[in-house]
Amino acid sequence: MAIDPVLEGLERRDPAALARAISLVENQRDDYERVLSHAHARLGRGGTRRVGITGPPGAGKSTLTERLIQHYRGQELRVGVIAVDPTSPFTGGALLGDRIRMESASHDPGVFIRSMATRGAHGGLATTTEEVADLLEAFGFDRILIETVGVGQTELDVARSAETTVLVLVPESGDGIQTLKAGVMEIADVYVVNKSDRPGADKLRTEVEVMLGIRRGNAFRHISPHHRSDSRTVGSSDRKPVPSDAWEPPVIAAIASRGEGVAELTHALDRHHRHLEASGRLAAGRRERLVQRTRAALERGMRQWIAATAQAEELLARRLDDLVDGRRSPYDVAAEILDQLKTGAGR
Amino acid sequence: MAIDPVLEGLERRDPAALARAISLVENQRDDYERVLSHAHARLGRGGTRRVGITGPPGAGKSTLTERLIQHYRGQELRVGVIAVDPTSPFTGGALLGDRIRMESASHDPGVFIRSMATRGAHGGLATTTEEVADLLEAFGFDRILIETVGVGQTELDVARSAETTVLVLVPESGDGIQTLKAGVMEIADVYVVNKSDRPGADKLRTEVEVMLGIRRGNAFRHISPHHRSDSRTVGSSDRKPVPSDAWEPPVIAAIASRGEGVAELTHALDRHHRHLEASGRLAAGRRERLVQRTRAALERGMRQWIAATAQAEELLARRLDDLVDGRRSPYDVAAEILDQLKTGAGR
Repeated sequence: MAIDPVLEGLERRDPAALARAISLVENQRDDYERVLSHAHARLGRGGTRRVGITGPPGAGKSTLTERLIQHYRGQELRVGVIAVDPTSPFTGGALLGDRIRMESASHDPGVFIRSMATRGAHGGLATTTEEVADLLEAFGFDRILIETVGVGQTELDVARSAETTVLVLVPESGDGIQTLKAGVMEIADVYVVNKSDRPGADKLRTEVEVMLGIRRGNAFRHISPHHRSDSRTVGSSDRKPVPSDAWEPPVIAAIASRGEGVAELTHALDRHHRHLEASGRLAAGRRERLVQRTRAALERGMRQWIAATAQAEELLARRLDDLVDGRRSPYDVAAEILDQLKTGAGR
Repeated sequence: MAIDPVLEGLERRDPAALARAISLVENQRDDYERVLSHAHARLGRGGTRRVGITGPPGAGKSTLTERLIQHYRGQELRVGVIAVDPTSPFTGGALLGDRIRMESASHDPGVFIRSMATRGAHGGLATTTEEVADLLEAFGFDRILIETVGVGQTELDVARSAETTVLVLVPESGDGIQTLKAGVMEIADVYVVNKSDRPGADKLRTEVEVMLGIRRGNAFRHISPHHRSDSRTVGSSDRKPVPSDAWEPPVIAAIASRGEGVAELTHALDRHHRHLEASGRLAAGRRERLVQRTRAALERGMRQWIAATAQAEELLARRLDDLVDGRRSPYDVAAEILDQLKTGAGR
């Protein structure tokens, strides 16, 4: 497929061109890196903000996302949504696909919703999600919501590719305590206890707050050994305040289905954004992400180089029996291929 | 660290040398690939079997693992256990660390238990787990149990690096239906409904069986279009039998804490192993895994090459301002570095 019509379509703000561009990037087809380079030159200009929303299945993330869309549309902000289902190699994306209808918003040209499956791209999902978010930002969306199901490492990586990460929990998910124990608490900037009219909501909220409080206490004691040795006798009420540039993640009670807590959430998101700006972390995070992205692009380029180098595949095929028999190890064969690439490359 | 004493220790079957070898591999330190090559030459000789055990937190995987250890020890088989916690970047491995005491087995030289954290190694956890399993197999363990917490993609990749994958579910996990929906059912060879004396166990077991049955039905209709068009009128009872070389995953009710269902599980594991052997899938799977491993080793080698090439890092640092300003994209810079590697390599 020729890339130029896609680039021209993006310039004209044609949603069909955007959809095509996303497909190219998602599938790493054709000159998708040209599309991404085109988008890159248009980033960081309009004050676009990226929010990641994650949590266990059934926590009400889609409903909350829908409410956020309504809120931002009320402010005439354009909203792009990327719904990522890391389990989709096994489901074809059914887990999100079912839930992402969001019909209230679907005919609004100021809203663009895209479901994304992983297509088996191990380790690369967070990078691809960020790249799709770049396309949305370059296209002119003011708010980009990245919704992902689950609290495993892949999901967290995806949610954390945004500037602000929201973790949505529900009392009845049964994952409450397990999630706490799994330490995923420590990765979000804002916590939402959704369906907060149900039994156990207050308890869950308190648990999360205690967890975060304990963590802050520990973190502070860590940089103040003298205080640590005192703390056994003086007790936890003696905790010193956190440094003024630290962010204290709020825990928000919400009933997304009724819109309750949504205003608090949007305020928290605004506060966190201001915090990132004032502390210099917005700019620092952006630099760090660009370095990571370049490394990811470099590794992809390396893989493509291996795949395009006929000798590499040929050699691997020729060595397969040796591998099976144990005469050569995968590391011997990899080193052999790498040597060929290194010496052959300069010719 | 010199590698030779480690290799000599492995030859002597010194458990301390094994522990050191695992640490080297886990941290990719020194000549760890020599250690792995050494192990590779000793694989596939003693009929070692690898079993992956996964499921949501609290499903009783550790208890079940402990029961399997007892069973195999009763047959005088040596057992190695790798306990992997993919959430550990956030917890330091606490989720498994708490549970993996397995005191009943800890003083038995025929049992070796190793907890493994991810150490932030994105995408590489399944590979590292397989490599540690290689070390255990080369050391002489007859059964290798790979236990991992959770049902996300990373966890499944780890569990599926074994020859046989067991998914453990519990009625009260609350994840039952969600797990079904997420399609993770389709990845296991054996299903265990643990704590099967609790309310909801029969229901969960039926759901899993229906899910597996439906899937087989669909799969069959997929290869028989004529049958598919008929099926609406004739109904699902008309399903033809699955092909004789297909494996029908059993669903086993267990109460691991009392040892109930453990004999059924070990029979199912034996049956699955015979099925893999008879169908040729054991050998085919081994070949495929060796190819994947070689590719993984090659990619690691590539990354090390990039890291060791001073110009690559230098160039990236020099281009950082251009990246931030949007004058160059990560893809431009990656291509530039790759070009330097390609042209510089042959000199």
